[in-house]
Amino acid sequence: MKINDEKKYMVLALKLAARAKDRTYPNPMVGAVIVKNGKIVGTGYHRRAGESHAEIRAIAAAAGACSGGTLFVTLEPCDHYGRTPPCTRAIIASGIKNVNIAMKDPNPVNSGRGIRRLRNAGIPVNVGLCAGEAKRLNRKYIKFISTGLPYVTVKLAQSVDGKIAARDGTSKWISSDTSRNYVRKIRSDFDAIAVGVNTVLKDDPFLFGTKRRGSDVPRIIVDTRLRTPLDSNIVRTADRAPVIIGATELAPRSRVERFRRVRGVEIVVTRSKRSKVSLKVFLARLARKGIVNVLFEGGGELIGSLMDESLVDEVMFFIAPKIIGGSYSSVKGKGAGNIAGVLGLRDVEVRRSGDDIFVRGLTCSQG
Amino acid sequence: MKINDEKKYMVLALKLAARAKDRTYPNPMVGAVIVKNGKIVGTGYHRRAGESHAEIRAIAAAAGACSGGTLFVTLEPCDHYGRTPPCTRAIIASGIKNVNIAMKDPNPVNSGRGIRRLRNAGIPVNVGLCAGEAKRLNRKYIKFISTGLPYVTVKLAQSVDGKIAARDGTSKWISSDTSRNYVRKIRSDFDAIAVGVNTVLKDDPFLFGTKRRGSDVPRIIVDTRLRTPLDSNIVRTADRAPVIIGATELAPRSRVERFRRVRGVEIVVTRSKRSKVSLKVFLARLARKGIVNVLFEGGGELIGSLMDESLVDEVMFFIAPKIIGGSYSSVKGKGAGNIAGVLGLRDVEVRRSGDDIFVRGLTCSQG
Repeated sequence: MKINDEKKYMVLALKLAARAKDRTYPNPMVGAVIVKNGKIVGTGYHRRAGESHAEIRAIAAAAGACSGGTLFVTLEPCDHYGRTPPCTRAIIASGIKNVNIAMKDPNPVNSGRGIRRLRNAGIPVNVGLCAGEAKRLNRKYIKFISTGLPYVTVKLAQSVDGKIAARDGTSKWISSDTSRNYVRKIRSDFDAIAVGVNTVLKDDPFLFGTKRRGSDVPRIIVDTRLRTPLDSNIVRTADRAPVIIGATELAPRSRVERFRRVRGVEIVVTRSKRSKVSLKVFLARLARKGIVNVLFEGGGELIGSLMDESLVDEVMFFIAPKIIGGSYSSVKGKGAGNIAGVLGLRDVEVRRSGDDIFVRGLTCSQG
Repeated sequence: MKINDEKKYMVLALKLAARAKDRTYPNPMVGAVIVKNGKIVGTGYHRRAGESHAEIRAIAAAAGACSGGTLFVTLEPCDHYGRTPPCTRAIIASGIKNVNIAMKDPNPVNSGRGIRRLRNAGIPVNVGLCAGEAKRLNRKYIKFISTGLPYVTVKLAQSVDGKIAARDGTSKWISSDTSRNYVRKIRSDFDAIAVGVNTVLKDDPFLFGTKRRGSDVPRIIVDTRLRTPLDSNIVRTADRAPVIIGATELAPRSRVERFRRVRGVEIVVTRSKRSKVSLKVFLARLARKGIVNVLFEGGGELIGSLMDESLVDEVMFFIAPKIIGGSYSSVKGKGAGNIAGVLGLRDVEVRRSGDDIFVRGLTCSQG
């Protein structure tokens, strides 16, 4: 097969994988294409955790026509029993005689094992076709599986000079209707929406995402001393969408107990670090709950701390054509020590969003 | 004449006027077109202060063919003796029988007088064709002549989160080569370049503009207590381009005397306002020196104060795809009191400048 054709099939597999955009967590997105005698005989993609893997779907779609064909798959096939049996077994049984894999599975449970199993069965395996695109597609899963932390996206609505509120603390509304509608839409791409307690005290938001896997996504508050009001909009609606509050031993014990009696609210107490929630520890606890992909919406101190600890993977700024001045910065914290240490963005996208400017980018700390 | 034709000729006059972009101060830019029997018989524009006015040039270009023609001029012709004789006199003498004026002269010395003189001579005068464009073109002159203050443009190079320096105070370089080259280019559009003393202490810039009217433009430092070092790059090069330092009575008298002995340096002492330079008073002093159009390049405190006092007419942000965090905000000061009081931008232009995003806009306080 010519390299151009091979690339074409892998690009198709990537497109199939992307159909399940952000809906496969905690699994990766995977697409598969089976080609025989220059013809596509089967395609498939993984729709959501618990359902069939992409390879199995493609083999089923090919309905016996796999024998002697070539499989293009965007991620190394699994060789272990998870919620489904190993794909390597099905591939070998299907009679496929060539396998192209875009990237190795970063999951240590499988990484390399799937490739070895296929090769041991006499099937030539080529790894690395469209690897960049495949890594980009599954960057959230890769972050999660290789670090034990969720993929962190920061979303901010600010003025051109980087302010998120006026002197009186109000911020409704800095960005345009178009941007706020877009934010409501993108929230459904995340497993959880998070803010700092100051944002709760100031704005009293609801932070409703959209349903995922049939239920509302959790709303997270980072709240060292558990100052979140019991009658705040988020807590009042905990029966509708779960609430996870990250607190520390600095929170009054009685208050922790009080919150624990509220249905739908979960308090995660971790040891404080410099009198604040240790964000890395808290994020690791969220990851263990299956939260792969979390959106932080402010405020400035929390976002600054996330940046200081290199915990941010992606940023989305909605920049309104306004100047606010003063001290409510979108990103506070200690900040970069020197110019060489400044966090760069890559794959930067810039476009208008209503009257605003939308800037999106991956942090250079993201691999 | 049809209104569409009339508009076409006025647009041409505006284009002619704009040829002298930012080079006519303290005069406005003016363009003129003379039309007779559907044909353009003469055009002209004002090149620089002291040279012929646009109307005079157009009449001269028409070489006697004006009689019975229509004049299109972007600003009310002058009726007073300035550096040149009144244009109204020449228009009447030329035999022109119709005059279209885009806008009244905001200069109180002339405003309305030119129009009256022409009408009294029996010439019908129409005012307001393309008035918006004419006002936009001469917005700097209009600000200057109607308020006695220079037109203030703020230029900032910052990160996406609105920071102009890292924790150690360094800022070299936040923006891209492309942006910095562009800044060097646009500096030549201004009568003076200004910074706050903290920027001098931190960055020790040269702030050389390009020559205007044959000499280098002044560099201005806002410096309440006269902390500018005598060996700073700006002061050391005062023989090459003048330096104006705005100080207050809080500056040590001996230091004022010391600076006054440095050739090329001028110290403007005004009474302090809340222990700072009163920016409005200082700007008025600059205007009286013929500075119509000044570019402020930082730092955050000075820009914040300018914003707080509604002294900014236009902003240019070079936004680098980086995140710095911390406290070196591009616009500090007190900031807007509430969201309703936030300064909006209009006529917003957004484009890429190398890796950066360039955002330019007029403040809504600008008429």
